Amino acid sequence: MRTAEIMLREYSEMLETALADYLSRLSLPLTDRLKKAMSYSLLSGGKRVRPALLLEFYKLCGGIPEKALPFACAVEMIHTYSLIHDDLPCMDDDIMRRGKPSCHMVFGEDIALLAGDALLTLAFESALSAEGFDPEKIVKAAYILAKAAGMNGMVGGQVIDIETESGSVDLETLQIKHRNKTGALIKACAQIGCILAGASETQTETAASFAAHLGLAFQIVDDILNAEGDSEILGKPTGSDAEKGKTTYVSLLGLEKSRELVGELTGQALELLDKFEGDAGQLRELTVMLQSRQL
Amino acid sequence: MRTAEIMLREYSEMLETALADYLSRLSLPLTDRLKKAMSYSLLSGGKRVRPALLLEFYKLCGGIPEKALPFACAVEMIHTYSLIHDDLPCMDDDIMRRGKPSCHMVFGEDIALLAGDALLTLAFESALSAEGFDPEKIVKAAYILAKAAGMNGMVGGQVIDIETESGSVDLETLQIKHRNKTGALIKACAQIGCILAGASETQTETAASFAAHLGLAFQIVDDILNAEGDSEILGKPTGSDAEKGKTTYVSLLGLEKSRELVGELTGQALELLDKFEGDAGQLRELTVMLQSRQL
Repeated sequence: MRTAEIMLREYSEMLETALADYLSRLSLPLTDRLKKAMSYSLLSGGKRVRPALLLEFYKLCGGIPEKALPFACAVEMIHTYSLIHDDLPCMDDDIMRRGKPSCHMVFGEDIALLAGDALLTLAFESALSAEGFDPEKIVKAAYILAKAAGMNGMVGGQVIDIETESGSVDLETLQIKHRNKTGALIKACAQIGCILAGASETQTETAASFAAHLGLAFQIVDDILNAEGDSEILGKPTGSDAEKGKTTYVSLLGLEKSRELVGELTGQALELLDKFEGDAGQLRELTVMLQSRQL
Repeated sequence: MRTAEIMLREYSEMLETALADYLSRLSLPLTDRLKKAMSYSLLSGGKRVRPALLLEFYKLCGGIPEKALPFACAVEMIHTYSLIHDDLPCMDDDIMRRGKPSCHMVFGEDIALLAGDALLTLAFESALSAEGFDPEKIVKAAYILAKAAGMNGMVGGQVIDIETESGSVDLETLQIKHRNKTGALIKACAQIGCILAGASETQTETAASFAAHLGLAFQIVDDILNAEGDSEILGKPTGSDAEKGKTTYVSLLGLEKSRELVGELTGQALELLDKFEGDAGQLRELTVMLQSRQL
């Protein structure tokens, strides 16, 4: 049986080969540090949940995963660029990421900034180079990606995070922040997988709703892990949210209620998967796995 | 007669209305500073040469300029994002831009960084939302835009700039730097205009070659102006390249030879325009105007 873990591993391998191939196309002289910085952050592991979600929805709706790789790569590039920029001194000033020094600690702030810029741009180069699709689908999928990553999505959510850093926020603001900062890209993954596979609008919306539930549960688990997780497993300090006086689901609802909410969201996400006719077994397993993850 | 100056003014007006419209779509709460920062840099004047080039080639090859506005806006957004990021303290650390404090001086480094990220992303959202085109053309044009802005274009050129900052470089390296840092996007403008209008490959290549000559001349004029220009007209300090010991066309070739080279490149650019059947009068005038500009 192909478990969710095997699925993630398989997709990760496919993805990393494709990502390394994109980076190998950097052909200008004197850009060695840029290539190393992009590669350092892009190929530093990570769960690769976003691209897996995209590829698995594409498969669920009738596609052959390999074909959608240019979009899966694009999503991972955008995720990685956002981490590089978030870690910069003028942003979160994080010196560690995934148990290693963050990009700017190794390559300097200027190269890290540009590595982020290059990855964000390469994401669209990658997506727009997808072959074997009706161009209309590519335009639609790439547009959704841009929207999810931009001012009314990921970047906007990051700004809300900055604006609410000092001082507590209410639950609604917290939700808007996460829906955009992390949720928008996760939702886009599910939508893009469906669109590329030619799924109906109803199916695409169901997938989007599933991903929205999953993304929110994912974030609450993040907050729980930060509050009580093992910093060695996480590869970054725990308890840092509380220290900074940051409002989280845990600070607003407490640990128990937060865990309950994760359970509810997971249940609702699983119900939404029932609406698909194909084999959603791995997506189910992934959903449950993410709920109980330790990192 | 519609002179190049009138053309630039007409396109600027169209463009600014469209740009303001995109910014007005930022709908998330608590993102007011982001919107102001994006607007501050995007709507702060500038010659708008890049979008004008795109729109005028689109027109030259049979299109109605208004239709190509989403791509013209995209190009200006990418140009603006690059200026915001270039001005950041970890990059060129420039406190002034177009006679006003640079974006991060007004809005802080974090918001400036994110305004840049948002503009780069909005560029693709804008381009991919273009209406009334064969989707194949949109994919092709947006792909060219991404490639020109990315690691093998603008970002790569910026990295070469950083890597060659201390110490002198030879003419070939200087050319590679400028061909990518500023030339790639200018070239893409001409190509995109042609592609959207359904021009032949030969025409598109001629346009690209024209733009490459224009872009190089533009850069050399920049170097000349920096060496001898009036800082009050330019809105930024002059003589700064020489002070920093930066290699420029002027430092390598001297003022006279640099001026000669601008003349040659301009001549070659004008010859390339002869190959188009339509009215290239404004493009001609623009080419001559840029050669003799004072800012």
